[in-house]
Amino acid sequence: MTEFFQTSRSLTHAGVMTMLQTAVVKAEEIGQPQCIVIVDASGELLGELRMTGAKYLARKSAFAKAQTSASIRAPSQNVPEAVRVHVAAATQNAITSLPGGLPIIIDGETVGAIGVGSGTGDQDIECGMAALEAVGADRI
Amino acid sequence: MTEFFQTSRSLTHAGVMTMLQTAVVKAEEIGQPQCIVIVDASGELLGELRMTGAKYLARKSAFAKAQTSASIRAPSQNVPEAVRVHVAAATQNAITSLPGGLPIIIDGETVGAIGVGSGTGDQDIECGMAALEAVGADRI
Amino acid sequence: MTEFFQTSRSLTHAGVMTMLQTAVVKAEEIGQPQCIVIVDASGELLGELRMTGAKYLARKSAFAKAQTSASIRAPSQNVPEAVRVHVAAATQNAITSLPGGLPIIIDGETVGAIGVGSGTGDQDIECGMAALEAVGADRI
Amino acid sequence: MTEFFQTSRSLTHAGVMTMLQTAVVKAEEIGQPQCIVIVDASGELLGELRMTGAKYLARKSAFAKAQTSASIRAPSQNVPEAVRVHVAAATQNAITSLPGGLPIIIDGETVGAIGVGSGTGDQDIECGMAALEAVGADRI
Repeated sequence: MTEFFQTSRSLTHAGVMTMLQTAVVKAEEIGQPQCIVIVDASGELLGELRMTGAKYLARKSAFAKAQTSASIRAPSQNVPEAVRVHVAAATQNAITSLPGGLPIIIDGETVGAIGVGSGTGDQDIECGMAALEAVGADRI
Repeated sequence: MTEFFQTSRSLTHAGVMTMLQTAVVKAEEIGQPQCIVIVDASGELLGELRMTGAKYLARKSAFAKAQTSASIRAPSQNVPEAVRVHVAAATQNAITSLPGGLPIIIDGETVGAIGVGSGTGDQDIECGMAALEAVGADRI
Repeated sequence: MTEFFQTSRSLTHAGVMTMLQTAVVKAEEIGQPQCIVIVDASGELLGELRMTGAKYLARKSAFAKAQTSASIRAPSQNVPEAVRVHVAAATQNAITSLPGGLPIIIDGETVGAIGVGSGTGDQDIECGMAALEAVGADRI
Repeated sequence: MTEFFQTSRSLTHAGVMTMLQTAVVKAEEIGQPQCIVIVDASGELLGELRMTGAKYLARKSAFAKAQTSASIRAPSQNVPEAVRVHVAAATQNAITSLPGGLPIIIDGETVGAIGVGSGTGDQDIECGMAALEAVGADRI
């Protein structure tokens, strides 16, 4: 029998706030203020924070990183090298290959993504990883 | 204990195709070609059809109707009379009070919405209602 | 002597997080999930949260409310009745008169604004007021 | 005698629905959920489906692929290598060279195009080809 509906998981605002807080703590620890964006599995925004001293335009790239990771269900830098420019163009720059986007995966199911921007790629990923760990998301 | 995740339902593409097909059958029956748009609970598009003879710009209003119903979890014309103009403006016209948007509700949970446009308000609602019934959605 | 520069105050991310958290607590208390948006004195986003169950399009109106209050340094509904439609149009709908936008004022200086949306006007204002109080902002 | 008008063929919504359904069957068969977009000869949307599990941003690239193929009346990857980046830029990224866009040609006349995205280029083309065959379109 064909099923019209299926069950899926989603992030609560308690989860979103915990992720934001944890990313902030990590960003303060490494001394790099960040823009942090969290989206749901359809790319709609759930939460966002621009830390004091972060680059304000990094909000835009952090959003693109989050959107990309929610869509491809993988870190944003996993967009294949060969198609990066073309895929970015064909999606009106919704897709980015910049590092700092990470999917939020629970027991194999992608429930959204976090995008971090303002630091180096490694710093962005470190803050995102800390946020994922705080809510018990799968290791990426 | 605070919960970081929750369980929710969503529409499969089998459900989306059944809704589109049923809306088409109803539209043919009443002799009014329609634009039909189905979105998920975050307003992201799941399926769309522009019938032969439908007004092509009705795609835009059908999308706004679907978006509105998914957000307010009620028929689009339920936007209160007193705030219609202001709410439309404040959301860059994402919210419309035009009739023809209906939430897709399963056991009380909104999983998305359908928006229909090209006919009269009553015709649009009739096609949307037929589509809801076809997948066993709650009566509105 | 003419001064080319002046000192002003601004909200830290600690202030933003405290405002978001307090608005959430109030929203849970009154049983109305909300979209909460906080902007700086230039209208640039500082923080945002979409609570579980809030209307996702209320993000847009909450942003317009916050932007309006930061600009006019007063509650959003203070936009004079006579010019509401015209001012909205002339600012590409950046200005809204919907209730739920409140300026964040410290010792008479506006450092930003909070916009809340998803509930009734009174509920939106109540959550915003709680957030202002939590950071010791001037009473409005 | 100069003719001011001419006769042309176009795709009916029965054709559009058959193409969507066939693409879905093929996508399920190869185990790769897809975003499928069908446009008319003017690039205006006729039908669209985002399958369960497809990348939601692939909607955008599938649309660009369909638009491109309807315009150049050839597979999207036929955009010449040497001009790809420049043509994309000059058309505000309406034109893409990503594989997965195919023109719908009937007796030599292009009546629209289908764009498929979410899988590999080969998977996208395979689903599009199946849809073309289902409505008796010319082999490309």
